[in-house]
Amino acid sequence: MSSAKAPPGNIFYAQSGGVTAVINASAAGLIDAAMAHPAQFPKIYAGKNGIIGALREELIDVGLESKDELAKLRHTPGGAFGSCRYKLKSIDDHRVQYERLIAVFKAHDIRYFFYNGGGDSQDTAYKVSQIGAQMGYPIQCIGVPKTIDNDLPITDTCPGFGSVAKYVAVSTREASLDVASMGATSTKVFVLEVMGRHAGWIAASAGLACEQEGDAPHIILLPEVLLDEARLYDRIQACVDQYGHCVIVVSEGLKNQNGDFLSAANGVDAFGHHQLGGVAPKLAGMIGDKLGLKYHWAVSDYLQRSARHIASATDVAQAYAVGEYAIKLALAGKSGIMPIIVREQTQPYKWSLGEAPLAMVANEEKKMPKEFISEDGFGITQAALDYLQPLIEGEDYPPYHNGLPIIARLKLALVPQKLVPFKA
Amino acid sequence: MSSAKAPPGNIFYAQSGGVTAVINASAAGLIDAAMAHPAQFPKIYAGKNGIIGALREELIDVGLESKDELAKLRHTPGGAFGSCRYKLKSIDDHRVQYERLIAVFKAHDIRYFFYNGGGDSQDTAYKVSQIGAQMGYPIQCIGVPKTIDNDLPITDTCPGFGSVAKYVAVSTREASLDVASMGATSTKVFVLEVMGRHAGWIAASAGLACEQEGDAPHIILLPEVLLDEARLYDRIQACVDQYGHCVIVVSEGLKNQNGDFLSAANGVDAFGHHQLGGVAPKLAGMIGDKLGLKYHWAVSDYLQRSARHIASATDVAQAYAVGEYAIKLALAGKSGIMPIIVREQTQPYKWSLGEAPLAMVANEEKKMPKEFISEDGFGITQAALDYLQPLIEGEDYPPYHNGLPIIARLKLALVPQKLVPFKA
Repeated sequence: MSSAKAPPGNIFYAQSGGVTAVINASAAGLIDAAMAHPAQFPKIYAGKNGIIGALREELIDVGLESKDELAKLRHTPGGAFGSCRYKLKSIDDHRVQYERLIAVFKAHDIRYFFYNGGGDSQDTAYKVSQIGAQMGYPIQCIGVPKTIDNDLPITDTCPGFGSVAKYVAVSTREASLDVASMGATSTKVFVLEVMGRHAGWIAASAGLACEQEGDAPHIILLPEVLLDEARLYDRIQACVDQYGHCVIVVSEGLKNQNGDFLSAANGVDAFGHHQLGGVAPKLAGMIGDKLGLKYHWAVSDYLQRSARHIASATDVAQAYAVGEYAIKLALAGKSGIMPIIVREQTQPYKWSLGEAPLAMVANEEKKMPKEFISEDGFGITQAALDYLQPLIEGEDYPPYHNGLPIIARLKLALVPQKLVPFKA
Repeated sequence: MSSAKAPPGNIFYAQSGGVTAVINASAAGLIDAAMAHPAQFPKIYAGKNGIIGALREELIDVGLESKDELAKLRHTPGGAFGSCRYKLKSIDDHRVQYERLIAVFKAHDIRYFFYNGGGDSQDTAYKVSQIGAQMGYPIQCIGVPKTIDNDLPITDTCPGFGSVAKYVAVSTREASLDVASMGATSTKVFVLEVMGRHAGWIAASAGLACEQEGDAPHIILLPEVLLDEARLYDRIQACVDQYGHCVIVVSEGLKNQNGDFLSAANGVDAFGHHQLGGVAPKLAGMIGDKLGLKYHWAVSDYLQRSARHIASATDVAQAYAVGEYAIKLALAGKSGIMPIIVREQTQPYKWSLGEAPLAMVANEEKKMPKEFISEDGFGITQAALDYLQPLIEGEDYPPYHNGLPIIARLKLALVPQKLVPFKA
């Protein structure tokens, strides 16, 4: 972590990992703030498809985009510049990659590196900050937090999570009213599968939908709690007996008593993570076989993390703010850090911005605290609700045209290349 | 269809079949209009779980609900009074059921029967109108249209459909931006499964998301077009080659070349319909096996038809209006009819209310016209877009509290029973 007066130079910004409903809001915050300092940051380049854009020297010239379209980034889901699942190997094993990055940065006078992503991506940002120092090329590296998994350490929450949490809580409430209507003669059990490999933050957020006794979700199945089938069936039957129906929200990362994922693995991604999906149909089928109850199931998959139409206003504000703050930190000459959100107060929610060293953020996974999980393992506690509720507060609707949300349409024009091609 | 000055009497209103995001808006329209005529309609009863509530003499006394909660029906999804999948058998085969209905109506001085549902439910309303005449008990029967399937004849559209269409179009656009971001290193194919057993109206509505060349959805798979696997794979590969990714929206009712549902059937419901679901994982797996492309899939199931948070303002207005109009028709002494929506003009959309005889509505299924399906069978035409677009126009957001949509909390108090129990 250095701190000196920042020299003028160009910006490289890139998006990494699974995208969110608000990662472009972070881009908007960063671009707006940077454009207010044209002498300091003559050019803003965005990597085409994350760090790959730097390796391949595919740099999008943000200055060529119209102000109108850039303004729409704030309400456009997905990663407008393209993202990637691509983890840089260790510096010792793959020095050539790092040398290439520095060569590209030098060729385009890039002095600022902003990497917008989760734990793996902050690891990349950290490594770039190290190699810059090692190779004697002055580059300020700042991570910009993003992940629907809410598993970055130190920060109160991660931009992207609040909007998924809101989507899941709203969808759970809405679908539960549907099931409740049908229970007398038709569907009695509804299973909603949500994302979350190792941490149950997203599934837990469904618990916000429960306002009074009997409200859904009746059961939340978290990756932190190994599935006890017999107890689950008992609980479902009791719920159907009492309320006429049962709504279950299950995390994709639910594991059986052996600790194996309940869903069949579909291979591994570039970060070595198992690709999950399909827990809901599997679990619903098991329940139907065992209890003979009619069921429906839903898997929201990408819908949940791209649902900008129901984004949390708190989340959008925080996403924009961390982008803006990253520029402020850069202007203060800082490097090797990531803006974080600091919870000043819960009721009413007050937050401010702070910073954390990338060394402490990279590859750390924040799990749900034990005290957030109810004793029976099928729900969440008041402490979890207190933590989660402010994160879904407020609606931030995009503008619409012809009944559909308006999205940014960028040119994504690449800067002329100066170096020989490199195979990333 | 009779038409005379309406005598005073109580109202029976019930919700039937799969519920929607706006069926309660129809209830609100009907209740508001009826309450404006207390001398004409001294009591408003709602069937607990549809027609079953009449058979079992489980009548909810709407007059005991607070005005505040009733007002919330307009923005509460699901069926607030409970729905049912229950089809009355023919009058000849099951006269006892019809006699029971008339006995309950007599006991509670019910002179107005309003049944809010789709084709099967309009058949029920039609049968009740026949038996009333046969048995010499004067009861005015009016159907109130509702179905996300958009398959009722004569009416321009069916309340409930426009909101699902909007949900599907919005979700397709949002998720496609996610896939587009990930295509370079990860997911290249995204499959979204939507409802629609025999008619592709809902899948077709995803086509509204496509605004310019290259936009998703790239492929729409309709139940009207038997799947040609080889052509599908070619099309997907060409799309990935050209755009880097491919977004497919598939109807649950997609059939293979033999005319069999692609998804395994999960038995049949009370109306004798196959319960479908699971086309998306099946199709995505086939694509992955054949083309070796990484895929994701989503099944929105009940989420799509309960998504009141993104309801179409046009749909909400029409849902409320048909409820209101049903009372107007009753006041005019009419029976054996259903309010319909009449398209006066497409651009800009202008609609009015009309009426259709239940005899012409019951058990008729409106399929998509051939000229709405593109020649290659993988998309929709301009004629389809012209028809569909007005139906998703406008947003009608519910009020929120603590980050969640506010819903009606009804007492659902039952009227004291007067008859001996009846097993429905």
